[in-house]
Amino acid sequence: MAGSTYGNIFRITTWGESHGKALGVVIDGCPAGLPLCEDDIQQYLDRRKPGQSSITTQRKEADEVEILSGVFEGRTTGTPISLMVRNTSQISKDYGNIATCYRPGHADYTFDAKYGFRDYRGGGRSSGRETIGRVAAGAIAAKILKHLGIEVFAYTRSIGPITIDDTQFDKDAVYSTPTAMPDKQANEKAMTYLQVARKDCDSVGGCMECVVTGIPAGIGDPVFEKLDANLAKAMMSIGAVKAVEIGDGTAVSSRKGSENNDSFRMENDRIIKTTNHAGGILGGISDGSNIIIRAYVKPTPSIFKTQQTVNQTGQEIDLQIKGRHDPIIVPRAAVVMECMTAITILDAMMANMSSRMDSLTTFYSPADTK
Amino acid sequence: MAGSTYGNIFRITTWGESHGKALGVVIDGCPAGLPLCEDDIQQYLDRRKPGQSSITTQRKEADEVEILSGVFEGRTTGTPISLMVRNTSQISKDYGNIATCYRPGHADYTFDAKYGFRDYRGGGRSSGRETIGRVAAGAIAAKILKHLGIEVFAYTRSIGPITIDDTQFDKDAVYSTPTAMPDKQANEKAMTYLQVARKDCDSVGGCMECVVTGIPAGIGDPVFEKLDANLAKAMMSIGAVKAVEIGDGTAVSSRKGSENNDSFRMENDRIIKTTNHAGGILGGISDGSNIIIRAYVKPTPSIFKTQQTVNQTGQEIDLQIKGRHDPIIVPRAAVVMECMTAITILDAMMANMSSRMDSLTTFYSPADTK
Amino acid sequence: MAGSTYGNIFRITTWGESHGKALGVVIDGCPAGLPLCEDDIQQYLDRRKPGQSSITTQRKEADEVEILSGVFEGRTTGTPISLMVRNTSQISKDYGNIATCYRPGHADYTFDAKYGFRDYRGGGRSSGRETIGRVAAGAIAAKILKHLGIEVFAYTRSIGPITIDDTQFDKDAVYSTPTAMPDKQANEKAMTYLQVARKDCDSVGGCMECVVTGIPAGIGDPVFEKLDANLAKAMMSIGAVKAVEIGDGTAVSSRKGSENNDSFRMENDRIIKTTNHAGGILGGISDGSNIIIRAYVKPTPSIFKTQQTVNQTGQEIDLQIKGRHDPIIVPRAAVVMECMTAITILDAMMANMSSRMDSLTTFYSPADTK
Amino acid sequence: MAGSTYGNIFRITTWGESHGKALGVVIDGCPAGLPLCEDDIQQYLDRRKPGQSSITTQRKEADEVEILSGVFEGRTTGTPISLMVRNTSQISKDYGNIATCYRPGHADYTFDAKYGFRDYRGGGRSSGRETIGRVAAGAIAAKILKHLGIEVFAYTRSIGPITIDDTQFDKDAVYSTPTAMPDKQANEKAMTYLQVARKDCDSVGGCMECVVTGIPAGIGDPVFEKLDANLAKAMMSIGAVKAVEIGDGTAVSSRKGSENNDSFRMENDRIIKTTNHAGGILGGISDGSNIIIRAYVKPTPSIFKTQQTVNQTGQEIDLQIKGRHDPIIVPRAAVVMECMTAITILDAMMANMSSRMDSLTTFYSPADTK
Repeated sequence: MAGSTYGNIFRITTWGESHGKALGVVIDGCPAGLPLCEDDIQQYLDRRKPGQSSITTQRKEADEVEILSGVFEGRTTGTPISLMVRNTSQISKDYGNIATCYRPGHADYTFDAKYGFRDYRGGGRSSGRETIGRVAAGAIAAKILKHLGIEVFAYTRSIGPITIDDTQFDKDAVYSTPTAMPDKQANEKAMTYLQVARKDCDSVGGCMECVVTGIPAGIGDPVFEKLDANLAKAMMSIGAVKAVEIGDGTAVSSRKGSENNDSFRMENDRIIKTTNHAGGILGGISDGSNIIIRAYVKPTPSIFKTQQTVNQTGQEIDLQIKGRHDPIIVPRAAVVMECMTAITILDAMMANMSSRMDSLTTFYSPADTK
Repeated sequence: MAGSTYGNIFRITTWGESHGKALGVVIDGCPAGLPLCEDDIQQYLDRRKPGQSSITTQRKEADEVEILSGVFEGRTTGTPISLMVRNTSQISKDYGNIATCYRPGHADYTFDAKYGFRDYRGGGRSSGRETIGRVAAGAIAAKILKHLGIEVFAYTRSIGPITIDDTQFDKDAVYSTPTAMPDKQANEKAMTYLQVARKDCDSVGGCMECVVTGIPAGIGDPVFEKLDANLAKAMMSIGAVKAVEIGDGTAVSSRKGSENNDSFRMENDRIIKTTNHAGGILGGISDGSNIIIRAYVKPTPSIFKTQQTVNQTGQEIDLQIKGRHDPIIVPRAAVVMECMTAITILDAMMANMSSRMDSLTTFYSPADTK
Repeated sequence: MAGSTYGNIFRITTWGESHGKALGVVIDGCPAGLPLCEDDIQQYLDRRKPGQSSITTQRKEADEVEILSGVFEGRTTGTPISLMVRNTSQISKDYGNIATCYRPGHADYTFDAKYGFRDYRGGGRSSGRETIGRVAAGAIAAKILKHLGIEVFAYTRSIGPITIDDTQFDKDAVYSTPTAMPDKQANEKAMTYLQVARKDCDSVGGCMECVVTGIPAGIGDPVFEKLDANLAKAMMSIGAVKAVEIGDGTAVSSRKGSENNDSFRMENDRIIKTTNHAGGILGGISDGSNIIIRAYVKPTPSIFKTQQTVNQTGQEIDLQIKGRHDPIIVPRAAVVMECMTAITILDAMMANMSSRMDSLTTFYSPADTK
Repeated sequence: MAGSTYGNIFRITTWGESHGKALGVVIDGCPAGLPLCEDDIQQYLDRRKPGQSSITTQRKEADEVEILSGVFEGRTTGTPISLMVRNTSQISKDYGNIATCYRPGHADYTFDAKYGFRDYRGGGRSSGRETIGRVAAGAIAAKILKHLGIEVFAYTRSIGPITIDDTQFDKDAVYSTPTAMPDKQANEKAMTYLQVARKDCDSVGGCMECVVTGIPAGIGDPVFEKLDANLAKAMMSIGAVKAVEIGDGTAVSSRKGSENNDSFRMENDRIIKTTNHAGGILGGISDGSNIIIRAYVKPTPSIFKTQQTVNQTGQEIDLQIKGRHDPIIVPRAAVVMECMTAITILDAMMANMSSRMDSLTTFYSPADTK
């Protein structure tokens, strides 16, 4: 099936493998007239780039983006924007038993089951590098949202047992700490925790959170295209995510209605909620409060400890993974979360423009009455 | 936007409001030749029907389904199957302040923000009755899956603080207890808990779980159409669901890789996993183990306690909700979860049929070589 | 495959068979706030209703539409509009050899080849009655377009060898003549021609034309979603249509560029074309001139002359068709053409609303600057 | 709107402008295991390449394709195939009045009306070079079809008033004549006709035809996704096509049913039609006969004769077009027609695999019964 396209009106199609020639994305449906240059996109790619700290893979990739189409004289034209990043550090190596064995926690076995064989080099299409296209496209979505007064912001909430202290929230720390935690103390504890795990040839899981501010009420759809349903899909489509929460998430299941309902009140002539257990979405449609999403990420499946597995001929073997691997996925995945959220929100906002007759009649008022 | 359609190849379109004339669904893409009658569908609808116990709304609805098209001489024809359930118990009443005020936790405000006004009778399209179409369609998907050796099974995992004891798992109890819990002791505790909440004019949240058995490895897609991504969307599209987990879900975030990876081993010449933290999906594709999904449901927002809110003219008011409401959504929503899962799995399996060249050449082997 | 859905934003899903219980359509994505009642739709259905003249089938069907959802207090709510027409005149009869033989020019053989069997009663899903859903949905699209100053108008251009004289164009005649020709003289000649054909146990082909007036320039898309590409699909999806032309159509193939190019000129400060060979579309996008479409319809395949064919067991047989059949499809299909055109145009106009950044910023101007 | 994607299961997304850095396509949903190399694709691109004869533009482009992803060790992997062709001959020039004026017959005015501005260099996205992506993708679809015993073959049927003589049909001539006519005599006459037109600073229209052989009965869908409906869209989406015919096309409109119906007969134990007026499709589904499609192409709008037009500030001007332009589009567009047909047919065949229950049960027979 054609499964590399996401979005309806603002629609992206990603392509590329970990050790192929290049990776990229085609963005179709981007409105015409947006000022856009490589640097707008590069900033986002740099946040997911490997080799930036001791807790990311030491693979060296510049991940430089090239705009191949859809921009003319510095502005988007409304036609497809093709973005490409060349792979430069595909170390020519003996893939050894990786080519034939099924790494636990990886997609090796399931790819073979589906397709009959696979590009085993660095995980092929199931590699984390697949997200390059998402981030490149999300940078554009985020730029458009900024024009509309909306900000999307993701960060690391927890690493292993260490969770940020919300009272110490420091937005800048997200960009200056290797863990992307908005809390410098938590960052330090997490770094220590990670060094120990790494020494143990092990890896660590974590949680990332995304906040959308400035979104108006009324975005989303009542049934299958609920805004939270699409956000859940977007999050769960990021490799290694195993759970998604909106607002208070799992916690609501042990609450009473009187505790969980958010009261409406007036503030400066606008309707607001006095609390935000709902995470900014009611009945699948934004309610004007901040949208809050959390995604829980499993520990990197590539660990250096010896593991039991089988190979494709059905022999049970002991596996020793080598190479360059992040001991934790979360810090680099936070920008992916931000980008997938931006694309989802923008797509819903574009869809929303035709939801009322008066919007159509305003937009298409007959020429003689304009 | 057109948001009432779900699925790509097996595609359903639902319609209808809580207090309109009828609700229904069109199923398009159902394979030809499936034996089908009203009773196949009615069994599923009966599981979500109101008025079955003291913890469901006392609204009396037979919810009788009528097959309007797509079935000929007892078999599906491959053309759209139209199913309809007439509403019979739309009590003609004074909707009072419900028509103009925004109930906390409901979609009243967000509908108005999106569409400018709303069908306020019983929640209109945002009512739980909207799921009638999903269940009717899901009954068909589940029947097809059974033909393929696959079972989809959902039940209540927890209600408020009461969780089932897995060691006491009793499948039959799901159908015989009012809570749909597979554990009679837990059911009794939950019933007591619910009576207290009800007396307090309050409501309760809970968790439901779904297990898919018999699914072969290789179903799903690597990037945006990951099987778990689509399941997450399917779950979060059910009203009141605020979190979704696959396999061990949020718990993986505080694990080490060595704890979380599932080893592969051989059993009866087949590849199996020795544990199933992954919940049956690796890299977005089924791995042959059971698929495990959990959805967390908020307490019913309609409570009889007085609540603070505003009305559509911007006045702050005290709201007293009346009428017929379930104190908990989960027991009746479990069958909805089962149905949305069945549709998602079946659609992925149909998409999967063209994923390999050898499948195409087998299917379309030139006539002279047949 | 799920092939009964048409349109992206304004999206319709039709269902129903010729001799099933009912036929209908679900319209999803209709903007909220449109005044709508059964009569708006009934007017259109009445134009395609059988039994209105000597040249239509004598099957008696009231084709009364019922609105089942999506309308509240006389206005559309933005949620799916479900429309149903009950079949009342399914004469209980012996279908005789129709059940087992393949009528020439019909879909009997191809349905069996695809699905393994078919609903043979009156053509099942391949019957012309399938268009009831299209017309019901198109009536709504046409009503919306009227609000935007756009009219869609279709009529019979030719029947057999008789073509209308454009200099005698009389719009009212379309509604008052049995042929739906906008030329009373042509209508009379065509009626004579049809009586002869009928007496000969034969049927007749023809051509229908559709004109869209008032459409602004800029609607449509440059590549696959060209407005003319979607119109061509819409037309060719109507049973019995075998050719589609935009503007001068096939005639352009024997022209020179200097003859075929339409010059641009100014008129009342607006850009106009001095001719309209292009039929209102350039590069897949409307140019502000009238859109002109022609669809060529084959003679009704059901004729009373004896025909040679085979049955499903592979025997060669002589076939004598009985029953109630139109000797020509065009007069009743013109309203189907009008409706499919309206849906296609409206969907393109809704899609167009997000094509420019300045449209988005106007629509979503931050609250404080409004 | 996102309008650069075509196909449902075998899905292509094209990108690129005439004078941008590159053009390309992403093919998603290609089955795994197809042997594929650049040369498979280059053969098709070479047939549409400019500069091959006196009747094509003298722009020099090698149009060399690069496979960027989706192929591993010489076989497709089932993941997206990204193909790119770099532009090398974007002559740096003064675009002069082209940048500001609206060329008759071109999309200049309609692009401005839609997007507010346009990439005016060589037509930007509305250039014929846009079809590079279609041809590259179509080469793959055609290769798959060949594996299934199906051939798709397109050629020039007429140029201006010169039409091929079917009795002289010579398939090889299509590849050896500059006109791509399967009739050497017609080719010579057409060449003379074209030289005269060119001397007159004018251009010429024509007709192309496509034949699909070997397709089994049963492919396509009954309602909106009729095979002929999708073929009509595919054809009309090719720039400059103004009419599409299936089988006998417009001619059926002046026929009697008794003349137009194709009788069924038995031949070698298979059902065949004794004639093929229907062009291989009945009720939207293939009937096993050859599929016949014709597309009528307008004369190249770029002519060297002086033309009247307006510029974007609304001044009426005389326009003199310069540069490199084909006097006729058809010979190079035939391969585009072939490719769009191949993609459409393949996509329908993949969709068809899940149309029957017995196909599903065969494909997914439970492991223990295999």
